[in-house]
Amino acid sequence: MKINIIGRGNVATHLIAALEGKVEIRQVNPHSLEGFDEKADVTIISVSDNAIRKVAEALPATSGIIAHTSGSTPIDVLDCRKEKTGVFYPLQTFTKGVELDYSEIPFLIEAKDTDTEKTLLDLAAKISNNVRIADSEKRKALHVASVFACNFANHLWAISEKLLNDNGLEFDIIRPLLKETLRKTEHLSPFDAQTGPAVRRDSKTIDTHLSLLENDRELMNIYQTLTSSIISSHHNK
Amino acid sequence: MKINIIGRGNVATHLIAALEGKVEIRQVNPHSLEGFDEKADVTIISVSDNAIRKVAEALPATSGIIAHTSGSTPIDVLDCRKEKTGVFYPLQTFTKGVELDYSEIPFLIEAKDTDTEKTLLDLAAKISNNVRIADSEKRKALHVASVFACNFANHLWAISEKLLNDNGLEFDIIRPLLKETLRKTEHLSPFDAQTGPAVRRDSKTIDTHLSLLENDRELMNIYQTLTSSIISSHHNK
Repeated sequence: MKINIIGRGNVATHLIAALEGKVEIRQVNPHSLEGFDEKADVTIISVSDNAIRKVAEALPATSGIIAHTSGSTPIDVLDCRKEKTGVFYPLQTFTKGVELDYSEIPFLIEAKDTDTEKTLLDLAAKISNNVRIADSEKRKALHVASVFACNFANHLWAISEKLLNDNGLEFDIIRPLLKETLRKTEHLSPFDAQTGPAVRRDSKTIDTHLSLLENDRELMNIYQTLTSSIISSHHNK
Repeated sequence: MKINIIGRGNVATHLIAALEGKVEIRQVNPHSLEGFDEKADVTIISVSDNAIRKVAEALPATSGIIAHTSGSTPIDVLDCRKEKTGVFYPLQTFTKGVELDYSEIPFLIEAKDTDTEKTLLDLAAKISNNVRIADSEKRKALHVASVFACNFANHLWAISEKLLNDNGLEFDIIRPLLKETLRKTEHLSPFDAQTGPAVRRDSKTIDTHLSLLENDRELMNIYQTLTSSIISSHHNK
């Protein structure tokens, strides 16, 4: 199998590392398009979301499939092409220089015909044990869900760290508790694993916490918003 | 060292497991007080927060220290006692039947004199490598911080799971991303590790997400509240 990977960012770099030795790879500069193999079976456009269309328009004709790697971009962004098109989306956050176990990374595949779908599924299966088909609508839902689970959770950790630092404590002190909170959800759904003053409707503790936050309207607002949401999802059925 | 542990809940059970073979333990029924050793060096009251005072009042006189294990209860709840008092707080969520690596659990110790403090520090050090002193104010801040980092984060995972299930996907698909998000914060502060549409001020993606949530006012409100908080903490300095 011959693959063009267009891009020089984190996703492109990690895809190349993951596919090294398994397929014939050409890494292609998205500006010069130098090195582009017109006979590649798959050309993967792995550039920032808003550059995908421009790169797709600039590519020479190829006998293979053209796919992008963006979770939040519809397959239609490649409609300017005459080739078969697809999406080859690894659901992971890549950091330069950090090695990952690629076999665990979920790959989400979309294509408009089953042959293209099969080629992209096969390519993903060379990297990961966790490959599935998901259309643009499903990917969109997955993206929102990952914003809640990861981006927003990370922001709560940043808030937690600031509260700790303001009181002479380090975020590290909370790590074992956080790890155990996450581990619990492997056996119990996060809904059933919920603990804390909100799910207990422990208004005395909630009031103590709000009075501790009273100098920061934004934190009070976040505390109240999430507390009401926990109460309403657990008790107003 | 001789220890009374008053209580039959998760914390009491895990403390007994962690101290087994290291000290002489009496597990005491909080109602009958049967088995109470009046010569114990430390009596640990490990019952629900609002039962601590009542149990403390009912205990026979002892020659040792009396301590409770609650993170959110001040040391003063034990002021009814003539003995030396303290707090012996393990910062962890305990589940019945789940074994933990006790050596990693942070123990927070409070006492009113250095002798009592030393005894409680020594006892905690028999369990954990992560023992420190924290007064009631510090513990209160820690408790709020753990609500943000753990309870609220867990609720976001529950929301994420619901969004995924509604679209025919499982929470498992997001786990590798979530694990990597948490792992990143071991090398980078959560603030510096922030990713996602909000920190990029990617209003196009934010609008797409909000329109996807438009049938659920509560989720829209959470999305907007956390998004503005990320933007203001990263860009309105």
